[in-house]
Amino acid sequence: MDYQSFFRNQLAELKQEGNYRVFIDLQRKRGNFPAAVRTHKKGQDDVTIWCSNDYLGMGQNPDVVAAMHAAVDRCGAGAGGTRNISGTTHDHVLLEEELADLHDKEAALVFTSGYVSNWAALGTLASKIPGCIVFSDSLNHASMIEGIRHSRADKVIWKHNDLEDLEHKLASADPARPKLIAFESVYSMDGDIAPIAEICDLADKYGAMTYLDEVHAVGLYGPRGGGIAEREGLMDRLTVIEGTLGKAFGVVGGYIAASTELCDFVRSFASGFIFTTALPPAIAAAATASIRHLKRSNTEREAHQAIVAKVRKRLDTLGIPHVPNPSHIIPVIVGNPAKCKFLSDTLLDDFGIYIQPINYPTVPKGTERLRITPSPVHTSGDVDRLIVALHSLWNQCQLARQPMAAE
Amino acid sequence: MDYQSFFRNQLAELKQEGNYRVFIDLQRKRGNFPAAVRTHKKGQDDVTIWCSNDYLGMGQNPDVVAAMHAAVDRCGAGAGGTRNISGTTHDHVLLEEELADLHDKEAALVFTSGYVSNWAALGTLASKIPGCIVFSDSLNHASMIEGIRHSRADKVIWKHNDLEDLEHKLASADPARPKLIAFESVYSMDGDIAPIAEICDLADKYGAMTYLDEVHAVGLYGPRGGGIAEREGLMDRLTVIEGTLGKAFGVVGGYIAASTELCDFVRSFASGFIFTTALPPAIAAAATASIRHLKRSNTEREAHQAIVAKVRKRLDTLGIPHVPNPSHIIPVIVGNPAKCKFLSDTLLDDFGIYIQPINYPTVPKGTERLRITPSPVHTSGDVDRLIVALHSLWNQCQLARQPMAAE
Ligand SMILES: Cc1ncc(COP(=O)(O)O)c(C=O)c1O
Ligand SMILES: Cc1ncc(COP(=O)(O)O)c(C=O)c1O
Repeated sequence: MDYQSFFRNQLAELKQEGNYRVFIDLQRKRGNFPAAVRTHKKGQDDVTIWCSNDYLGMGQNPDVVAAMHAAVDRCGAGAGGTRNISGTTHDHVLLEEELADLHDKEAALVFTSGYVSNWAALGTLASKIPGCIVFSDSLNHASMIEGIRHSRADKVIWKHNDLEDLEHKLASADPARPKLIAFESVYSMDGDIAPIAEICDLADKYGAMTYLDEVHAVGLYGPRGGGIAEREGLMDRLTVIEGTLGKAFGVVGGYIAASTELCDFVRSFASGFIFTTALPPAIAAAATASIRHLKRSNTEREAHQAIVAKVRKRLDTLGIPHVPNPSHIIPVIVGNPAKCKFLSDTLLDDFGIYIQPINYPTVPKGTERLRITPSPVHTSGDVDRLIVALHSLWNQCQLARQPMAAE
Repeated sequence: MDYQSFFRNQLAELKQEGNYRVFIDLQRKRGNFPAAVRTHKKGQDDVTIWCSNDYLGMGQNPDVVAAMHAAVDRCGAGAGGTRNISGTTHDHVLLEEELADLHDKEAALVFTSGYVSNWAALGTLASKIPGCIVFSDSLNHASMIEGIRHSRADKVIWKHNDLEDLEHKLASADPARPKLIAFESVYSMDGDIAPIAEICDLADKYGAMTYLDEVHAVGLYGPRGGGIAEREGLMDRLTVIEGTLGKAFGVVGGYIAASTELCDFVRSFASGFIFTTALPPAIAAAATASIRHLKRSNTEREAHQAIVAKVRKRLDTLGIPHVPNPSHIIPVIVGNPAKCKFLSDTLLDDFGIYIQPINYPTVPKGTERLRITPSPVHTSGDVDRLIVALHSLWNQCQLARQPMAAE
């Protein structure tokens, strides 16, 4: 077999479909977010990032940056080992305590990423609990899907956020078998939110555990940034809350928070937790500083909600259609990968505005979109420039508009 | 089902077997490796770490630390997105160029860890190449095993480092089907090294791709730290070289180096690459500094080999049996998890020497061991203290000795 031609052909197919991804080479400027320098073949440009998942700009928060510097000075760069073999630093211990407290759980366990936390925790729970059936929301994130797939447990997919379908499927399963309901709070591509309380009611009724991915909610919702479950007073009803340190907290890493026994079980049996170098202590320290800051401060969350509302209103004024939802994510559906990429390229080249086109496999084919994530670091001037650019593009490309709202 | 009791029982079983893991809480002191502070219930102690995989102490190298500080000041803490959605920073681009150059390959691709690089790259290659058969060395690392398992490709396990068995198995397979031979250079728990040239000969003969994990060799072997394949002039014969940024390079992260097409293929299709926040730019910058330093400097590699030889000689003098091998890893087999933990605990509590006991599932049951990893940051005084402690323990516990070598 000619392996190289095989790869080339597969890539050519992607390109033909318009699904080939081009990464933009960026340098964010600390203290000056959302400004960044983009490097490309012809040189460098200044751009404004409108698609970051550093939702609150915590990556440049002075507490976070100071904690990272201090830990590098104290301990150096890496952890130097897996968690078991010399890689558990005091900063990991403090971070896990902070996370357990954030979610009001007995314990927490940190992984190298949110992806690995989902993959390893779901994979371990579903494979090690004999006969476990996983009830998985149809729009769950790739990391959850891969974890469940890896476990080889029986999986039942229920219609996205559909309680009736979930109940029907729970009721059809053998009552004696262990069950795990896996879902997200804020779905990152549409910005809709799961009915957590009602799902917990069903879990109680059918004796299931609940596993909630709050990756796009931690730091952002709840009086201390504990996520949607905190905001709704539901944290104690969830068996596992999973989150990331790489989005609203502005650093990198992932975690679960749960009972002491569950965390210890995953700690003891999850290959993806055991057989990998621990996160650097400076990462753990920076994440701890970020969580602590957002536990005490609502300023960022309030400013975030305000700017999201402002951008939505301005889009409505122009009649640019965006998917309504109760979260901070503003999806503008384009519905075609080539057109979506063209819009993104033009925004970047002509207006210095960076919004990555989102295409398959991140979203279903035919729902390609620009996904706008306003943040407290965007100024009124940034919003004005975004709106002017979109207005001009929508005219230029004769894209559909909704009836315009009154200014 | 009572889930909590299930977890409790599983943990109780682990404890009974002696396989329950207790993590040691450490703070390494930058500039003062291998010294660290251990925090425990009763307070804090000074300890000397003898089991780190920061093999060269690069975690405290001034170039590495400076690069990390500079990048934090420039760009802040995190990357703020997945590689596709705003998370490709200029530091990632430079790191991938540096890695491609290190291994003399067209391209490289960085992942959040070595674990994820193996899991995602092997999982993607083996599942996407139609009919692919993976020939996997029987002692391959968990991350490779999980990647192959995840792919659901046909897997043929060949006896560890056994060319005859590998050839027999390659010859028995359908010649028309695509094949991938997956193996490591330095096996981390026994320290033995694969016959890379001969495996490549077999790959040529049977039309197979080769995938080499150099996680425990990069930075440490070869004139520029390219690993065993560099040392033996074999880099161009390997389809994929995989490595980590978390061991000899002293930071965190993982990568593959291969042809442009292969890297682009994995970049485009691997879920574990696509759906996760990118490493922080400061991590990428620190890793780049470390690789650059070790490309130019042989000092650390020479000092490393010298201290490994010295520790081996001193162990021989005392008759403490250790597994002979051609690498830098010194395994002292104890063969029983409880005894191994007792030795480790006593070293820690009575002598301030930290060597984590290695037990199942990291090594097969019955081969529990102390795994000693000398590094250029250990002084002669550190070696003396290690030897005195082991001597005293071997007497105290009446452990078997080999005939003592002449001093
Ligand atoms: C819903 C969801 N879960 C998990 C992850 C993975 O988290 P991380 O980026 O920390 O790997 C992501 C995004 O990356 C996500 O969108
Ligand atoms: C052979 C081997 N491959 C891969 C890995 C994973 O690398 P990382 O620690 O960067 O996840 C390890 C150890 O952790 C290993 O020993």
